[in-house]
Amino acid sequence: MPQPTSADTYVVGVDFGTLSGRALVVRVGDGAELGAAVAEYPHGVVDAELPGTGEKLPPEWALQVPADYVHVLRTAVPEAVRAAGIDPASVVGIATDFTACTMVPVLADGTPLCETAGFGSEKHAYVKLWRHHAAQGQADRINALAAERGEVWLARYGGSISSEWEFAKGLQILEEAPEVYAAMDHFVEAADWIVWQLCGRYVRNACTAGYKGVYQDGAYPSTEFLTALNPAFAGFVTDKLEHEIRQLGEAAGTLTAQAAGWTGLPEGIAVAVGNVDAHVSAPAAQAVAAGQMVAIMGTSTCHVMSGDVRRDVPGICGVVDGGIVPGLWGYEAGQSGVGDIFGWFVRTGVPPEYHQAAAARGLSVHEYLTELAAEQAIGQHGLVALDWHSGNRSVLVDHDLSGLVVGQTLATRPEDTYRALLEATAFGARVIVEAFNGSGVPVTEFIVAGGLLRNHLLMQIYADVLGMPLSVTTSEQGPALGSALHAAVAAGAYPDIRKAAEAMGGRKIAAHRPIAANVAAYDELYSEYRALHDHFGRSGTDVMRRLKAIRRRVS
Amino acid sequence: MPQPTSADTYVVGVDFGTLSGRALVVRVGDGAELGAAVAEYPHGVVDAELPGTGEKLPPEWALQVPADYVHVLRTAVPEAVRAAGIDPASVVGIATDFTACTMVPVLADGTPLCETAGFGSEKHAYVKLWRHHAAQGQADRINALAAERGEVWLARYGGSISSEWEFAKGLQILEEAPEVYAAMDHFVEAADWIVWQLCGRYVRNACTAGYKGVYQDGAYPSTEFLTALNPAFAGFVTDKLEHEIRQLGEAAGTLTAQAAGWTGLPEGIAVAVGNVDAHVSAPAAQAVAAGQMVAIMGTSTCHVMSGDVRRDVPGICGVVDGGIVPGLWGYEAGQSGVGDIFGWFVRTGVPPEYHQAAAARGLSVHEYLTELAAEQAIGQHGLVALDWHSGNRSVLVDHDLSGLVVGQTLATRPEDTYRALLEATAFGARVIVEAFNGSGVPVTEFIVAGGLLRNHLLMQIYADVLGMPLSVTTSEQGPALGSALHAAVAAGAYPDIRKAAEAMGGRKIAAHRPIAANVAAYDELYSEYRALHDHFGRSGTDVMRRLKAIRRRVS
Repeated sequence: MPQPTSADTYVVGVDFGTLSGRALVVRVGDGAELGAAVAEYPHGVVDAELPGTGEKLPPEWALQVPADYVHVLRTAVPEAVRAAGIDPASVVGIATDFTACTMVPVLADGTPLCETAGFGSEKHAYVKLWRHHAAQGQADRINALAAERGEVWLARYGGSISSEWEFAKGLQILEEAPEVYAAMDHFVEAADWIVWQLCGRYVRNACTAGYKGVYQDGAYPSTEFLTALNPAFAGFVTDKLEHEIRQLGEAAGTLTAQAAGWTGLPEGIAVAVGNVDAHVSAPAAQAVAAGQMVAIMGTSTCHVMSGDVRRDVPGICGVVDGGIVPGLWGYEAGQSGVGDIFGWFVRTGVPPEYHQAAAARGLSVHEYLTELAAEQAIGQHGLVALDWHSGNRSVLVDHDLSGLVVGQTLATRPEDTYRALLEATAFGARVIVEAFNGSGVPVTEFIVAGGLLRNHLLMQIYADVLGMPLSVTTSEQGPALGSALHAAVAAGAYPDIRKAAEAMGGRKIAAHRPIAANVAAYDELYSEYRALHDHFGRSGTDVMRRLKAIRRRVS
Repeated sequence: MPQPTSADTYVVGVDFGTLSGRALVVRVGDGAELGAAVAEYPHGVVDAELPGTGEKLPPEWALQVPADYVHVLRTAVPEAVRAAGIDPASVVGIATDFTACTMVPVLADGTPLCETAGFGSEKHAYVKLWRHHAAQGQADRINALAAERGEVWLARYGGSISSEWEFAKGLQILEEAPEVYAAMDHFVEAADWIVWQLCGRYVRNACTAGYKGVYQDGAYPSTEFLTALNPAFAGFVTDKLEHEIRQLGEAAGTLTAQAAGWTGLPEGIAVAVGNVDAHVSAPAAQAVAAGQMVAIMGTSTCHVMSGDVRRDVPGICGVVDGGIVPGLWGYEAGQSGVGDIFGWFVRTGVPPEYHQAAAARGLSVHEYLTELAAEQAIGQHGLVALDWHSGNRSVLVDHDLSGLVVGQTLATRPEDTYRALLEATAFGARVIVEAFNGSGVPVTEFIVAGGLLRNHLLMQIYADVLGMPLSVTTSEQGPALGSALHAAVAAGAYPDIRKAAEAMGGRKIAAHRPIAANVAAYDELYSEYRALHDHFGRSGTDVMRRLKAIRRRVS
């Protein structure tokens, strides 16, 4: 670890994930990471029963408790500062990133409804976590109506908005708990709520307003549209959503005395506007120019890229003005299953002797299978898979798609299928890159962040399948580091996020280079993947959707 | 076990399998099975190195040693008689069935070439086992030439003959070991060679002559055809193959003194003509009338059925006059992977905790998965699979096809995929049944024989998928019992195989009945299977073939 000196100044970045928050202390001058700490949310994800009452939650629900986020500020931040061995007085700014779209219904002063008298036992008064999927009916109606009315914003989201987003969640509250809807003064992104707790001011950030709040060209969906959805929903934007919006990297305010007490940081330091885990990672990876795509590869992959023009890219999650860095159009796409698929296979599809052999060698089953998979020539396993075990987010935007493996024989071994799954996700990434390239916003650099960059075979496969070198981030704490960069900008230590990224971010350019023979071999397999992709995902057959419909019907 | 009485007479059936021979003593009056014994072949399958010389065999080779068959006569037969507790003098006949097409090159007196001076170290002088697949090049040329010349016999074999059969194997010997070809006086089915050893006379049986020897309408392929294949092959039929043919159930001769010495049976008793394991099972299951399909379900499934008319059924293995019972057209079809696919999955795709849970319950993994799979509603797993892990024998006749699973998600469990594989083989069976029904030789009864009939879930799935009741054989020794029936007919105890089947065979009619709601549910899934079958197997895509071609190229 780098050593602090008395002349240095520092910033703190806090990454609020699904299960915990992570604080990171970073040196302003060079981005050195000096100390980190993690705090689990005491209530984790609330998807079984409501705290206190024990009420059973319906399927697809996922809530959180807002006090858990404050708990992170009170524990992880001071702990990270202690771990860094710095003087807290030398911290000049703090910034946060959050899961999204995670929504908190609050009173006018920011008090979460669930903490108010009479609403503690009402499930709709709690935080609706990003993965709360119980508003699908509302989302379906929003999409159908938007298509029918030809709403121009629909194309900015690849043709459909998600049940995870603000409008679907808000409409669900109105229709299922009108008293909660009536009582809430604001429906706030947790990304902005935590900033409110730090600086005492409610400021919306341009990123979630655009990606999750359908804020486009200076406006939210119209009152006419909302009225057509449900007359009682007519005032959703004006009454619950609309608020001052600031750009990423701007200051939302300064640290309050209360928040200084929680965190141990100096009162009055800069607090940056809120941000989102994936998007905040881009500057940490020095991806601040048009065409630099960052793939945050973990259980799923999120692709974020800035562009200097706005184009309709098929099947993206969204394009937002200043959505990643101010002044550029921020594009987001995604693969809904990546590491999750490998994990599922290792958990459910690998026989005992492989587990034993891995253990005997002191390897994880992932590492053991990777080692075996690396021994074979491209195409030797005779397989092609479709990586849709969690559906397809981009470019097909269809959660009723599913996985497929073709080519298995009695000679097929676990490492063969494992490798085919690794390759399938690389093919899926190539489909996304080609969609951008073909839409006038070309991908000029592919930068990998996230836990999967440690798998060298996987990285080589991606380089070979994409036919381009891969850069990788140098930080293992991409989101928290990205937040720290925004804190430095908000504190005025750098004039803009580009300068901060240059000085504090890091990436290894072309860490993995494509091998010409492999690129040619994968071109051949990719054409098979692409044909299956189009057959099962587009015009060929609806078998996957029908199988899911049958499954729902008989379950 | 039934008890013998002094008034009873008996017959012996001997089933020569791939790894061992099994002798069964059966009471003529009622088919009661009184004693059995198995003898392993001392040399098993010779596919690694040649006995004696240690010469390494090329890939795809599979040989046997003819003395191993005599070893079965000398050990298993007397042991079965002892186990039955009968007086050997009360045995009135013996009959055999064999794997096919398994070929022995011999001298004029039946001596195997590999037992003669100078040929013991020549691999082509040994028995070529049915699964010797090194004559694929010869088979390809035979099929191409037959198609080009419009040979009428080609349609009798679904449009192509196999590399396993007599002509491909014979041509391989000519082209790779002309001195062996020149030295052999007959190229004999092991099914007939073993009968020759028992009765001292060479008689061909109508079954293998038709199915494996391409004997149709009283003739083998013409001299012109053979000359066009290879001028040196012109005399293959006349010099090596042609010989007296007798119908199944006829006597080939009587037991010689030498064979009586080997077996302990009385000299002079009837010896039936040779037969084939699958075909001989039909009468044992009382399937002697037109429309009774017997499915012998094990690692693969062989379907045999007699018809009173000859029709072109697409993709069958063959149709032969008297091929199963004299006087009817014998049809054969097959699924190249059934139990093999389930075994592959259990071996390579089931995680440790399932193995442990099965062991804790004292169940095999198959039994445990079956129990779990039985708990779910039809379609609940959301999967459809294609059962082509070993290629497709009927009706597509393509070994370059491969397996497919569609519909997997992160929630898919091992029992889900296992059940989908069970169902896939049932769908494959339905394709075959529909091919017969649609060709004017309708399947009126579906009778299951073989080891898999013990899996009740599998049987119920087959009944539901086929939409018809399943009968099951009552004997667990179908082939050996079938041979015993033929021995009884050859000995004159019954006027024909129909009467013998009635008295000595057995089946439980409608042991498994379709459940109407299940039939409807499977109709829906079958239409998905059928669409995938046609897309991947017929006109839609050649992806499976291309993947196998790539695999061969890079391996």
